[in-house]
Amino acid sequence: MKQKIDAVLLLIGVMLFVSACATNTVNQKSGLLTIQQQGSFLVGGTTLSEPGKFDLSTALKPQGQTLHGDHGYVFYQIPPQARKYPLVFLHGAAESKKTWESTPDGREGFQTTVLRRGYAVYLLDQPRRGEAGKSTVAATITPTPDEQFWFTQFRIGNYPDYFAGSQFPKDTASLEQFFRQMTPNTGNFDANVVSNACSQLFDRIGAGILITHSQGGGPGWFTAIKNDKVKAVIAYEPFSSFVFPTGELPRPIQSASLFGELKGVEIPVEDFKKLTRIPIIVYYGDNIAREPTKVWNSDHWRAGLEMANIWAATVNKHGGNAKVVHLPEIGVFGTTHFPFSDLNNLQIADLMADFLKDKKLD
Amino acid sequence: MKQKIDAVLLLIGVMLFVSACATNTVNQKSGLLTIQQQGSFLVGGTTLSEPGKFDLSTALKPQGQTLHGDHGYVFYQIPPQARKYPLVFLHGAAESKKTWESTPDGREGFQTTVLRRGYAVYLLDQPRRGEAGKSTVAATITPTPDEQFWFTQFRIGNYPDYFAGSQFPKDTASLEQFFRQMTPNTGNFDANVVSNACSQLFDRIGAGILITHSQGGGPGWFTAIKNDKVKAVIAYEPFSSFVFPTGELPRPIQSASLFGELKGVEIPVEDFKKLTRIPIIVYYGDNIAREPTKVWNSDHWRAGLEMANIWAATVNKHGGNAKVVHLPEIGVFGTTHFPFSDLNNLQIADLMADFLKDKKLD
Repeated sequence: MKQKIDAVLLLIGVMLFVSACATNTVNQKSGLLTIQQQGSFLVGGTTLSEPGKFDLSTALKPQGQTLHGDHGYVFYQIPPQARKYPLVFLHGAAESKKTWESTPDGREGFQTTVLRRGYAVYLLDQPRRGEAGKSTVAATITPTPDEQFWFTQFRIGNYPDYFAGSQFPKDTASLEQFFRQMTPNTGNFDANVVSNACSQLFDRIGAGILITHSQGGGPGWFTAIKNDKVKAVIAYEPFSSFVFPTGELPRPIQSASLFGELKGVEIPVEDFKKLTRIPIIVYYGDNIAREPTKVWNSDHWRAGLEMANIWAATVNKHGGNAKVVHLPEIGVFGTTHFPFSDLNNLQIADLMADFLKDKKLD
Repeated sequence: MKQKIDAVLLLIGVMLFVSACATNTVNQKSGLLTIQQQGSFLVGGTTLSEPGKFDLSTALKPQGQTLHGDHGYVFYQIPPQARKYPLVFLHGAAESKKTWESTPDGREGFQTTVLRRGYAVYLLDQPRRGEAGKSTVAATITPTPDEQFWFTQFRIGNYPDYFAGSQFPKDTASLEQFFRQMTPNTGNFDANVVSNACSQLFDRIGAGILITHSQGGGPGWFTAIKNDKVKAVIAYEPFSSFVFPTGELPRPIQSASLFGELKGVEIPVEDFKKLTRIPIIVYYGDNIAREPTKVWNSDHWRAGLEMANIWAATVNKHGGNAKVVHLPEIGVFGTTHFPFSDLNNLQIADLMADFLKDKKLD
């Protein structure tokens, strides 16, 4: 009898131990998150120096003083037994790293989703944005009401109407959070400055995967060109700054976009060829025309998707491995310009996981 | 024999369980961090509305459009079995929530230190700063070299000399991180706007402790006045915005500070009395004169410390419970204007813990 009791107690002890350890495994799908290390730092940037000699008695004059600016800001979290490659996230225009944190309706964003799946996560505020606001160039910020434009441009719908089947949450509190998460430039956007900071982040952390959104796409390509520690690029709805080798620039794509025609960017072929070294996947969401239309938001992204396809074909012609996925064509409907924070963002995360697994990068 | 083996195995099982659980207890002094929930959101703020009707065909015109601004940004982490009161952190001038994250030399900041000690943590970017950059007022940002001034003003030393025994790390990489973590306003500083957002954060999360730094001190007092969910205030080196009841304003304190004399702020006595409901502790670091001096940084903070003492005496005269601690007087030497990120910041965290324990708020 005593033996049986001991055996049962032993079993209970072992089961409790296993259960307690479960939060420390690679996949923490729900419940407690376990983190090995977290923190933040500034990366890259330049320094302005005012000529002259600093004098303590006239310390409010700039003479002999410095200004450090144009760095990126990084918040990172590393889970125990992290997967080989960390994920580096670069936001889009008018956004900050908030893009990747909680969704507008308060669910977990990709920051926490991929952490639960065992990836180390590095979220960037690009130079001159968010907590990396200290810029070496001057800026004027004018509060201009424009949120109904962005609602439409970002394909939540045609304001005030949501698209039928939109994956954006339809309560007013979520829309308010979405509008408030936008944050202005504190210096003009400069893809070179951004990609310099992003490249220096890879120098600091080593090989990893770069994930970009929208305007971040351009600096994303430049980062992968500058730094061979970028082992893959996953780009959500990149728009401007599609790069082509000298002499291979496609004709501008005419569009009803409020920003006019869409042009590629010419770069030396030896730079372009660096994009052929790594797998690249590009995702576009729903409610994008496949034929020219006068509906400007739908046609804006129609031009982007067309340019992305021409670009991927050019990368592949040069021996690369780039793929464009138009989500509705694989049965994923209703996604906006922010697929990673839409209501179906776990499905979007699964697609990313499949890509990384397929490329043996997970 | 079999019984003995079973008993030993049982003991091992129980020990392993206890050890595995240890990371889930209230004190996670080192090693893995365990988090129940984390995320971010925007809080408070106002909305500008441009007159007219929004028209999709002229969507770049502001007519009929909105701008949501002047909110705060919050990143939060909640450990399992969190202590009763969360800690809300409000940064100072030219800083963001980065202030409370990793220290300039890369050690854990108060964000992670207090999380390990079982507190839920809410880090604010105040309205018009960092990731809460969307402002309802215009701003011009001019990159002016001024870092040697701030080195001196923040009492790291008298540039280029560090104070003897300074608790600021003396390597150049740390100083560079420190300079780069500063970030500009995207609209003028307004203590009322900041305290509105901060108060709305308490409305959202319920009762908690407010911890402020420097310029955050002023909006900190206003938050505690506006919201009785603030159960205590811990203020590191508050400077401006010491509030006094109408008719009880002390004479301005003359000072060699580059900002001139230091004045209090008059508020209605019924507002002031709200500060007497809660325990308040104020900390000042080292290298602050106790008698007037012509050394401007030392005298700037001498005026601040004197005003804080007059203010605490006034709070206590009205029945309050405010205390000013000048750290060198209790044997803590070398701290700068940022005691919570100095080399001895764990000692500073212990003092905070003692205060909360003493007031039965932990």
